[in-house]
Amino acid sequence: MDPTTRADAVHRLKSIAGHINGIVRMLEEDRYCIDVIKQIQATQQALSRVSEGILDSHLRTCVTTAIQDADSGERERVLTEITEVFRHTNKP
Amino acid sequence: MDPTTRADAVHRLKSIAGHINGIVRMLEEDRYCIDVIKQIQATQQALSRVSEGILDSHLRTCVTTAIQDADSGERERVLTEITEVFRHTNKP
Amino acid sequence: MDPTTRADAVHRLKSIAGHINGIVRMLEEDRYCIDVIKQIQATQQALSRVSEGILDSHLRTCVTTAIQDADSGERERVLTEITEVFRHTNKP
Amino acid sequence: MDPTTRADAVHRLKSIAGHINGIVRMLEEDRYCIDVIKQIQATQQALSRVSEGILDSHLRTCVTTAIQDADSGERERVLTEITEVFRHTNKP
Repeated sequence: MDPTTRADAVHRLKSIAGHINGIVRMLEEDRYCIDVIKQIQATQQALSRVSEGILDSHLRTCVTTAIQDADSGERERVLTEITEVFRHTNKP
Repeated sequence: MDPTTRADAVHRLKSIAGHINGIVRMLEEDRYCIDVIKQIQATQQALSRVSEGILDSHLRTCVTTAIQDADSGERERVLTEITEVFRHTNKP
Repeated sequence: MDPTTRADAVHRLKSIAGHINGIVRMLEEDRYCIDVIKQIQATQQALSRVSEGILDSHLRTCVTTAIQDADSGERERVLTEITEVFRHTNKP
Repeated sequence: MDPTTRADAVHRLKSIAGHINGIVRMLEEDRYCIDVIKQIQATQQALSRVSEGILDSHLRTCVTTAIQDADSGERERVLTEITEVFRHTNKP
């Protein structure tokens, strides 16, 4: 992962952890269920943005290097990982 | 929301915030991109479990009360909210 | 389900089946992989619109009736179904 | 896309189109809403399996070739497409 992507991901994740602590306070204040669910969905979207940034960097660094330089076993491994990450998000 | 669901949601969200802080440390230690993405996906799944618990409680409390007792405008409002929450998760 | 929602769902599903047959032709013409994937994603979104319409109608008819009139076992059943449908879409 | 993946995708898509026509019949027979929604969700999952197979083949053919042989503009293009496909599925 390139340093800019990593710094951006760290910054976003700290902000998301703060957001989740804010949702804990919403629950302690007995706020309306649907408002809580919407905030949870917002943190899930924010997490998706982080993993997209990391995947994009991964493709341009590790995957590109593996495809250009590595043996076929290593190429196979990095490509299978991409398909698995895609499969995991691709539900239903 | 019933008190048991709320206490469970608070507990889970605090644990998820801790998990996210752990992912920040993974990034600071320059761990492998795909391992970071898998941990982010795990926190998203854990957040889904929280919102499902809250929705389930909401249906059994606020929605049931609104359908049994409220006027048609209020019934309409709570049912539209459920459809919207479903629509938000139902992507692509 | 109310008749308008059912007619709308039938119309949309027939259109989606036609769209999928069009994707088969794209494959037979050896079209670019990413273009095929985008069309598959479009049909998945169109299917989500259909299930949202059906869920919305279900909430206003069967669920409302069950909550107003049915015994607690039947109420329990219809509410659990809503949570299950939500859980199924709510991944990761 | 390799020929085996293409033939498999064509076979699966034809089966999914048949499944969707079966859901139309369920609606015409006024079957229970939740059963219809579950069948729609099943077709969405089946479509996900098709796009995963195509993506996997695309990574091993077009993307690998582009990274090994193409100029930087073309490499950039194919990698951006992968991130976009991932972003589209990665919701919320």
